[in-house]
Amino acid sequence: MSSVLGDNIRLSVFGESHGEAIGCVIDGLPAGIALDTQKIEKEMKRRAPGKDKTSTPRAEADIPHILSGVLNNVTTGAPLAMIINNTNTKSDDYDNIMAVPRPGHSDYPAYVKYGGKNDVRGGGHFSGRLTAPLVFAGAVAKQILADKGITIGSHILKIGTVCDDEFDKINISKTKLEALTDNFFSVLNPEKEKEMRSVIEEARLKGDSAGGIIECAAIGLPVGLGGNMFDTVESKLASAVFGVPAVKGIQFGAGFKLAEMAGSTANDAYFIKNGRVALKSNNNGGVLGGMATGAPLVFSVVIKPTPSVSVPQQSVNLQTMRDETLIVNGRHDPCIVPRALPVIEGVCAFEILDMMM
Amino acid sequence: MSSVLGDNIRLSVFGESHGEAIGCVIDGLPAGIALDTQKIEKEMKRRAPGKDKTSTPRAEADIPHILSGVLNNVTTGAPLAMIINNTNTKSDDYDNIMAVPRPGHSDYPAYVKYGGKNDVRGGGHFSGRLTAPLVFAGAVAKQILADKGITIGSHILKIGTVCDDEFDKINISKTKLEALTDNFFSVLNPEKEKEMRSVIEEARLKGDSAGGIIECAAIGLPVGLGGNMFDTVESKLASAVFGVPAVKGIQFGAGFKLAEMAGSTANDAYFIKNGRVALKSNNNGGVLGGMATGAPLVFSVVIKPTPSVSVPQQSVNLQTMRDETLIVNGRHDPCIVPRALPVIEGVCAFEILDMMM
Amino acid sequence: MSSVLGDNIRLSVFGESHGEAIGCVIDGLPAGIALDTQKIEKEMKRRAPGKDKTSTPRAEADIPHILSGVLNNVTTGAPLAMIINNTNTKSDDYDNIMAVPRPGHSDYPAYVKYGGKNDVRGGGHFSGRLTAPLVFAGAVAKQILADKGITIGSHILKIGTVCDDEFDKINISKTKLEALTDNFFSVLNPEKEKEMRSVIEEARLKGDSAGGIIECAAIGLPVGLGGNMFDTVESKLASAVFGVPAVKGIQFGAGFKLAEMAGSTANDAYFIKNGRVALKSNNNGGVLGGMATGAPLVFSVVIKPTPSVSVPQQSVNLQTMRDETLIVNGRHDPCIVPRALPVIEGVCAFEILDMMM
Amino acid sequence: MSSVLGDNIRLSVFGESHGEAIGCVIDGLPAGIALDTQKIEKEMKRRAPGKDKTSTPRAEADIPHILSGVLNNVTTGAPLAMIINNTNTKSDDYDNIMAVPRPGHSDYPAYVKYGGKNDVRGGGHFSGRLTAPLVFAGAVAKQILADKGITIGSHILKIGTVCDDEFDKINISKTKLEALTDNFFSVLNPEKEKEMRSVIEEARLKGDSAGGIIECAAIGLPVGLGGNMFDTVESKLASAVFGVPAVKGIQFGAGFKLAEMAGSTANDAYFIKNGRVALKSNNNGGVLGGMATGAPLVFSVVIKPTPSVSVPQQSVNLQTMRDETLIVNGRHDPCIVPRALPVIEGVCAFEILDMMM
Repeated sequence: MSSVLGDNIRLSVFGESHGEAIGCVIDGLPAGIALDTQKIEKEMKRRAPGKDKTSTPRAEADIPHILSGVLNNVTTGAPLAMIINNTNTKSDDYDNIMAVPRPGHSDYPAYVKYGGKNDVRGGGHFSGRLTAPLVFAGAVAKQILADKGITIGSHILKIGTVCDDEFDKINISKTKLEALTDNFFSVLNPEKEKEMRSVIEEARLKGDSAGGIIECAAIGLPVGLGGNMFDTVESKLASAVFGVPAVKGIQFGAGFKLAEMAGSTANDAYFIKNGRVALKSNNNGGVLGGMATGAPLVFSVVIKPTPSVSVPQQSVNLQTMRDETLIVNGRHDPCIVPRALPVIEGVCAFEILDMMM
Repeated sequence: MSSVLGDNIRLSVFGESHGEAIGCVIDGLPAGIALDTQKIEKEMKRRAPGKDKTSTPRAEADIPHILSGVLNNVTTGAPLAMIINNTNTKSDDYDNIMAVPRPGHSDYPAYVKYGGKNDVRGGGHFSGRLTAPLVFAGAVAKQILADKGITIGSHILKIGTVCDDEFDKINISKTKLEALTDNFFSVLNPEKEKEMRSVIEEARLKGDSAGGIIECAAIGLPVGLGGNMFDTVESKLASAVFGVPAVKGIQFGAGFKLAEMAGSTANDAYFIKNGRVALKSNNNGGVLGGMATGAPLVFSVVIKPTPSVSVPQQSVNLQTMRDETLIVNGRHDPCIVPRALPVIEGVCAFEILDMMM
Repeated sequence: MSSVLGDNIRLSVFGESHGEAIGCVIDGLPAGIALDTQKIEKEMKRRAPGKDKTSTPRAEADIPHILSGVLNNVTTGAPLAMIINNTNTKSDDYDNIMAVPRPGHSDYPAYVKYGGKNDVRGGGHFSGRLTAPLVFAGAVAKQILADKGITIGSHILKIGTVCDDEFDKINISKTKLEALTDNFFSVLNPEKEKEMRSVIEEARLKGDSAGGIIECAAIGLPVGLGGNMFDTVESKLASAVFGVPAVKGIQFGAGFKLAEMAGSTANDAYFIKNGRVALKSNNNGGVLGGMATGAPLVFSVVIKPTPSVSVPQQSVNLQTMRDETLIVNGRHDPCIVPRALPVIEGVCAFEILDMMM
Repeated sequence: MSSVLGDNIRLSVFGESHGEAIGCVIDGLPAGIALDTQKIEKEMKRRAPGKDKTSTPRAEADIPHILSGVLNNVTTGAPLAMIINNTNTKSDDYDNIMAVPRPGHSDYPAYVKYGGKNDVRGGGHFSGRLTAPLVFAGAVAKQILADKGITIGSHILKIGTVCDDEFDKINISKTKLEALTDNFFSVLNPEKEKEMRSVIEEARLKGDSAGGIIECAAIGLPVGLGGNMFDTVESKLASAVFGVPAVKGIQFGAGFKLAEMAGSTANDAYFIKNGRVALKSNNNGGVLGGMATGAPLVFSVVIKPTPSVSVPQQSVNLQTMRDETLIVNGRHDPCIVPRALPVIEGVCAFEILDMMM
């Protein structure tokens, strides 16, 4: 088990959903970086629950408290430790989980792996709540990257069967990306929001949940960033986004559609634009040979419908080893996709920063 | 840049396409493992070029030569070093690449990253030829995993728009997986092979190329294998498969289709079968919370059409900084998907072994 | 910069001497380990300042507060996060340090490395105070190791020119090692304590400081523990102990005396004792080829005299770039050797546990 | 087990003493570095056996053969793979080692660790022969460091009881260090060589062996190089030098003598010299807080007498589990200290380069 991410900067995440606190330590940040606390809190709020009917009514302020590594709002170069106290936990809701694992959750394999000793309350360390430190680390990384001319943003590409427009992969502006981070429910085509919300509300009323796809982009990466073979941009981003609960797939550029393309079409032609090398298309999502090409880095990830649903489900009792119907109580998100936007951006930012160091 | 993979066993890959030799060092293998050389060579042959019209006519025997770590066919516990001499290199074909980067290849970002000092002949260290050591490492890993009851296999799920059947994700037999590795052009539905070959031949005749999707499965993983957050089964496999050139996406279980499912459908219900916990479906691809569930591990990866096409392409001259039309000579694969099967299985095997240690 | 230790379990240390809190995250501990809080606190007290005239009068309770990874005193398998609030900080004492670096301290190279942005108050992240989390991690490791039959202890081998007896390296009992941890000022030959204390008191009265040597032993290591080349027992222990401020040397077994021995004398002969392989001497300190031999692991480390002395010292002003005489105020230890005992034992315990996992 | 060294550049060492070849892969070298093959071979010759009576008569040319990563004598940025074929192996000499472990060697713990499956011929992967790739990697690193103004050299400080002069730690010139590498038997005080050689010859005639101490220095390190806590200059160097067989201790600056010093003496005072910060002494060996101070990096390591002696030794038979007297045949070094000089310099160079990247 490892909750440590990064090669050059190291992010160590800790905490359990219903424990005293969650948090992280970021080791290896450069000294002398001025941190804008408001920007960090803005990112934290994008992920925080309780905003509207698409998310769980559990209210958590999620205000990060920095313990070390920052003096007078400037990084000292020492490890930055941050904690968020858990304030709103209702553990009674989870009393029967130990014996009867929730389908689609980590409960059963965790029970086997930890011999029943892991903290199951609210999912414990496997909880989506642990994405809050990822957003924090991402918010810190974003500020450092902004100084290097790198901007990151994302939108909801799909909820259920409702699709937003895709990014124009070869042409993504800083303004557009920044605007996307201003909305909780961020889409490129504003008409799609209502349709998507209907899908979610329908799921909510049924006690069910909805999944979706997030498309994320980063612009300004220096050409050649990344590595070869196992340190590719794709390897590092994929490794990190699969650390976000509920992610089940990732694709770069045209992704799975590349299977149907001819090589001559899939290849992104070069041309000289204003005296510099540019690309005419971006089917490769801004990465070739594992290195940044200068075109926007574009990838999309699928977020499965949150497994916490209140409809009756077929499960088993691990004590009696008999089949059992499970009805999960507790406060849950009918759709976590909107709240996952800053999380995906966050791990993307962290990994890009890690590659830049 | 890093061509080193693995946390508990370390695979260090070296070589350039037109250099003297390619190879790898595997550090951390257990001592006392009897290696069946024939099985290794069988895997190498699955990847080796020149078998039929779907692959490059460059003929390379690809016979691995072990230098250390094995005595009388048994591992000694010391690092296992292996080299493959390059015998069939025609570097003249590549003379103009330095100045005019091939679209879809690593040429341009590598040129920037290495200041023009990297070996560009045949793609150098970025060549698909470097997947031979991955197959070797995978063949070694497969033998160790077989003793632990783990079997891995894959098939071509898609070439162009032609689709094979998918795995019955909840029910995959060892016999089936082993049979798949006996064919070069392995599919579940034998009627699809001809159609797929037609797509490839059509591309070949045009001097173009075709892409596809590979579906890979592993059975026998112990429940709970894997880790949490950043050491999940998904993170580790994704990190490794993106080390394979041309891979642009990976999805587990139902993958991107999960976006359209309701949580109650996506969740894989449990039941007791012969006194043990079993699953009724496998939309999660055998992984929950980053850990193996006991259901088959199933994932698919998209392989982009090989960027080496002989049709004229728009590029730029990096010396003159002017647009230039590029015609690539050299011997190329119209479709690398069949040859990629043992590569994907290989990195899958290596990563599973790494997690088991 | 990295304050992360360990390959299989990861210890991430954070905090600054005069910041809000110090602490650590331990990632990768097994689940289900019952932790005895009293034993942890006993270890913390061995290191805590203010016990007598040999240490700084700064009083810190150093009570560790566990935030995650432990439920009902049993590890959950999730990262264990711990913080210690800093309660007794007098930063005024350190106002002039930024401009005039203290000789023997990290001040000057840290100033250059961090561009003057690091937290200099009390040494910041470089403070000996950061050894408290090491003692905590070691105390946790010791409890897990005790269940595996491994015991660790140490004594003061030297203060100034006063020498304690050395361990009988081939014959060290569990009882003896445990007894050593009961004393703050632990020596093998009780008559030496008084002499050593005199040396320290003499230094204290002069506003000066004294150094020394600690000899540490661990018994019960399984034969073959450790690795080859760069993962040797010696490499891993050395790497960790040099993470403890003021350590300037480490030697195993007869150490530097081996230079004067003949090979036939230095070699530790084997014999059969009660049907098992045993050694007649232990000049190699329990390690051969980087692996444990079954004899006690014995090493010693030199602790330089603490550089915080109140006698006037020659330094420079980094702003004016002129010579300047420095008089350091603040509360300091005339000798940190006794307080370093649990620190050395702690990193030893952590590294052995890391190798066992 | 791990024969992989380095964080930013990765050195993977392979081979067994009597196998087909030994070698290494260096991953992460910058592209565009011109390598002087003659300088590499000069370093290899310093370590190669058979020069005079102080070393084993086994003759090995030890000519490194580069397989990849270098084109026209310039690094390509791809992994640099190098092999040395073993040409002169007399395995019959080692037939009885499996059953009767040689005292002072890795034989016994390796037998337990690898279940008797490791290659025991000539010590297998534990052989001192595996230091040849370390010298190679060091020679490459030295050339890159030379361009950055860093020079490394060493001398024999002690053989038996005969001591050479110590480095004037605060004042070491590039010329002096380079001159040291021109001699096989390098000392600061030329009168000591004869005495030292007498000690070795005496040991040789008895079939015994002699140990010693090497003092190594590096000048030109940028102030602030290194890290904090566990990535200190000391941690990294110690970790690497303990990867060299027979090293049993390391100390920086005044090392173990610091135990007897007062803090006011041990502290190295600062002063302004030619407008820059300089130090008046160098008891800390050029490292404070784990970072380079600008003073020469100076450390010494003890090399135990080689355990291969031909006098009868007490051992055990692991098959019969009875005591047995062992007489080791084979060609051995009466003293490996002179041959170890380029090895210690090599790992020092590699680690400094790793920290610079």
